[in-house]
Amino acid sequence: MANSKFEYVKKFEHSNPLLPSTYMVVRIDGRGFTNFTNLHNFEKPNDIRGLQLMNKCAKEVMKSFTEIIIAYGDSDEYSFAFKKSANVFNRREDKILSCVLSLFSTSYVFFWSKYFGDTNTGGQKLLKVPSFDARIVLYPSLEDLQNYLSWRQVDCHINNQYNTCFWTIVQKGGLSTEQAQKRLKGTLTKDKNEILFSEFGINYNTIDEIFKRGSIWIRMISKKEMKQQKSRKPQEIKEQIQQRNQSEQINLEEEKKNGDSDVQDLKGDIIDM
Amino acid sequence: MANSKFEYVKKFEHSNPLLPSTYMVVRIDGRGFTNFTNLHNFEKPNDIRGLQLMNKCAKEVMKSFTEIIIAYGDSDEYSFAFKKSANVFNRREDKILSCVLSLFSTSYVFFWSKYFGDTNTGGQKLLKVPSFDARIVLYPSLEDLQNYLSWRQVDCHINNQYNTCFWTIVQKGGLSTEQAQKRLKGTLTKDKNEILFSEFGINYNTIDEIFKRGSIWIRMISKKEMKQQKSRKPQEIKEQIQQRNQSEQINLEEEKKNGDSDVQDLKGDIIDM
Amino acid sequence: MANSKFEYVKKFEHSNPLLPSTYMVVRIDGRGFTNFTNLHNFEKPNDIRGLQLMNKCAKEVMKSFTEIIIAYGDSDEYSFAFKKSANVFNRREDKILSCVLSLFSTSYVFFWSKYFGDTNTGGQKLLKVPSFDARIVLYPSLEDLQNYLSWRQVDCHINNQYNTCFWTIVQKGGLSTEQAQKRLKGTLTKDKNEILFSEFGINYNTIDEIFKRGSIWIRMISKKEMKQQKSRKPQEIKEQIQQRNQSEQINLEEEKKNGDSDVQDLKGDIIDM
Amino acid sequence: MANSKFEYVKKFEHSNPLLPSTYMVVRIDGRGFTNFTNLHNFEKPNDIRGLQLMNKCAKEVMKSFTEIIIAYGDSDEYSFAFKKSANVFNRREDKILSCVLSLFSTSYVFFWSKYFGDTNTGGQKLLKVPSFDARIVLYPSLEDLQNYLSWRQVDCHINNQYNTCFWTIVQKGGLSTEQAQKRLKGTLTKDKNEILFSEFGINYNTIDEIFKRGSIWIRMISKKEMKQQKSRKPQEIKEQIQQRNQSEQINLEEEKKNGDSDVQDLKGDIIDM
Repeated sequence: MANSKFEYVKKFEHSNPLLPSTYMVVRIDGRGFTNFTNLHNFEKPNDIRGLQLMNKCAKEVMKSFTEIIIAYGDSDEYSFAFKKSANVFNRREDKILSCVLSLFSTSYVFFWSKYFGDTNTGGQKLLKVPSFDARIVLYPSLEDLQNYLSWRQVDCHINNQYNTCFWTIVQKGGLSTEQAQKRLKGTLTKDKNEILFSEFGINYNTIDEIFKRGSIWIRMISKKEMKQQKSRKPQEIKEQIQQRNQSEQINLEEEKKNGDSDVQDLKGDIIDM
Repeated sequence: MANSKFEYVKKFEHSNPLLPSTYMVVRIDGRGFTNFTNLHNFEKPNDIRGLQLMNKCAKEVMKSFTEIIIAYGDSDEYSFAFKKSANVFNRREDKILSCVLSLFSTSYVFFWSKYFGDTNTGGQKLLKVPSFDARIVLYPSLEDLQNYLSWRQVDCHINNQYNTCFWTIVQKGGLSTEQAQKRLKGTLTKDKNEILFSEFGINYNTIDEIFKRGSIWIRMISKKEMKQQKSRKPQEIKEQIQQRNQSEQINLEEEKKNGDSDVQDLKGDIIDM
Repeated sequence: MANSKFEYVKKFEHSNPLLPSTYMVVRIDGRGFTNFTNLHNFEKPNDIRGLQLMNKCAKEVMKSFTEIIIAYGDSDEYSFAFKKSANVFNRREDKILSCVLSLFSTSYVFFWSKYFGDTNTGGQKLLKVPSFDARIVLYPSLEDLQNYLSWRQVDCHINNQYNTCFWTIVQKGGLSTEQAQKRLKGTLTKDKNEILFSEFGINYNTIDEIFKRGSIWIRMISKKEMKQQKSRKPQEIKEQIQQRNQSEQINLEEEKKNGDSDVQDLKGDIIDM
Repeated sequence: MANSKFEYVKKFEHSNPLLPSTYMVVRIDGRGFTNFTNLHNFEKPNDIRGLQLMNKCAKEVMKSFTEIIIAYGDSDEYSFAFKKSANVFNRREDKILSCVLSLFSTSYVFFWSKYFGDTNTGGQKLLKVPSFDARIVLYPSLEDLQNYLSWRQVDCHINNQYNTCFWTIVQKGGLSTEQAQKRLKGTLTKDKNEILFSEFGINYNTIDEIFKRGSIWIRMISKKEMKQQKSRKPQEIKEQIQQRNQSEQINLEEEKKNGDSDVQDLKGDIIDM
């Protein structure tokens, strides 16, 4: 076969299987989204359309990759955690990274008009291709995975509090962005809450949960499936999340299960956190 | 800072810089494109709209990543080769892989209607999100890189010859796909050429180059830039390609190949940009 | 500085930190030890001097690397497990691998005459340099680490049972090695025990534990240290092992196993230090 | 088989093949050799016995690993370069690293008394096990490999010049080590040469080459082998080195350097084998 002369170049490919029995987390992050959101007139500090589009993309990813058990997103980033025992693509790093990322990316363009409309409908046309980067991080224990998710959620909170205060004193207080930046320099959480409340009558706590805490998708399993799993491996995150229901926690939140189909796992719209 | 308690999870991230002074090749490949092309009524054996769309996406990637010196594509795959000295993202594997792939993926959806039209115009609406996987392979020498590109091009040729013959005996010969498969089993190149010619009057050699040999993008540099580079590193692939052209265009340019160059195997149909 | 012109070559070095919070296991294995043991007249099927020398080397390694919590060895191999939180050499794979291996290797030659004597004393002189290979494997959970150790110990048992039977029918039964091989082909554990017992009066169960089960070193901690640790991280393997002993020794200590411990599979003959 | 229950732990092992067609360099480095050399009364600034022992170990490594083409050593370190096409252990990083390192390490102890004697003979007994670390670095081109070797040799020169001056003013000038350190702080090469010459009558240029430039081993090939190779791959480093010699020896051979060779920087004292 004519091809054989060149086929030796395949030897330069390397496989990169990820360590078994660890949580694989794919984190996707928008590239240059400050410019992208300006160009597309995103509302500040948060544009619900943009968040809903991100959530829609995340749902598409979870429908396609059934070993993802939880996904968390805020702003222009989204994290997907596969269960410890996941064997997708034999845990090949580049394959998992690229397939999750590519599907998320194409979904963002495909579903854009569903959330932003287009010129005909008085909506916002997509003017330029967005793009995202991605990485994979491994977490050996459930505790570490939970702390990872908490880390991203605290990050969401800190950024949102700052941005809410920043854009309020710009949009309602009439300061320039430079003046606003200066004004907030060195302020603490309570200072920012105080500014919002005393100067603008805004109680930060009443702001939509999706802005303050981000969005989360959790794969639910039916009672039947759960029973089957119980007899196998009790320590999966699924069960643990299950256990926490009926509690009042902050962080990862209670969710009611009911469906028993594949898509049932993805609880319709994004639950508040 | 509230965040610090969880920030230790960043320690689990790993960097993966690729070996310096090697050619980094990103190969992108369509996932499930047999179904995707059926669903979207792609012409068989080749749909020029699909190839032009792939070429458009590749061009977007080359415009964005200026250290890519050559790109080769056929069917639903595309390869991008960075120059040896490329320092994009400090040569971090996941960053390069994800950014190139994501831009290619979103471009495919964004530019779809430019090539396929949409329902209003009697064209083919995009019904489902496509997606791609990607990998990075390193080649230490120019010879290996050339052989890599030749490998992909020979693959293009073999597949196209088979597909051309297969679809001709189905579309014009009236065989079922099963019958066609059976008929071609074990045939050699000359057998297939003979079938095409004697039974259907088709001379395989006259088929469009883009189908037989794929497409190639080459980054050109101006004489001025070339002089600047000459004083630095003479052995880069850029200069070698430049020698064949003496063209003065900057950046990406249409290129006619003469067949006597270092990369003479790559005689694909070079499309406009 | 004259050196700076060449120093760019340092960029080609890569760091390879191992995933945090996993058990790092270094397994060392003799290279070509069939020839090496023949050349040095090792007793068959087991030479206690050789095992004691291996144990001595392992002890040297454990004294030098204080984050190793357990080591298991049999025949010409030894495994060393670092605790999950170990930060030796910032968990750099090549540094850990090389330093553990090198110390083990030099100890083998250095302490040879302590166990084998030399020509003057009627002992066995070291005639040729031995060498070992090594690898590092990561285990995310204690359960996996325990199963790893069990895997090695079962391997020890299977090999020893075969070798004991094989060399008995050669040495006492007068068969050639080829005949012995043929005789044992396809036999089960109980068949081999039966041969040993009925033909040679040997009860396999009475054979020395060190031959049947290998050797194990466990790092002990004092009550005081344990208290200090309790206040930090309760789930370390150290404490689990400590619980079984109530011993007050610091560092490496001889240990008698009771069979009811967490690592009960590891019932090897614990040698003096 | 009883073993199968635990055998899943093998899945956690990872292979790590190194990129084909690159020069693999193993660099071995003494651990804690300042203390080790003090303990064993090494002569300062250089102990020829120590260097000869290192060279002996390097030779053992080259005899065992026939794809190593060149080795360079000075002080307590040694670098081994495999040819680009080397396929030893399928280029597995850990296997190559560990086997080269282990053999070097055991040789150091095994051959110690050959160079240092022992107590009976009025020599220096080995009192403590030495150990070494090791790493592997890949170089894609011959130029980079040459620069790597030059980098190590320049390092040898700089260290030796400093050490020669330092120990001269201590041993002959009567300064304490602290005073000597202070005296040399900030001095340039010519300052140190001047001190040596004007105060102690020592011409640095007349110092033994092995101290100033280190040691090098080069694998030679016979004319016959060279012819066989010519018909295959002309660009290997072997041929380049061979050209300078026209020697007909097979395998490792003593080599005198002429200063006009391709690796002219490497002018170390080449020792017998």
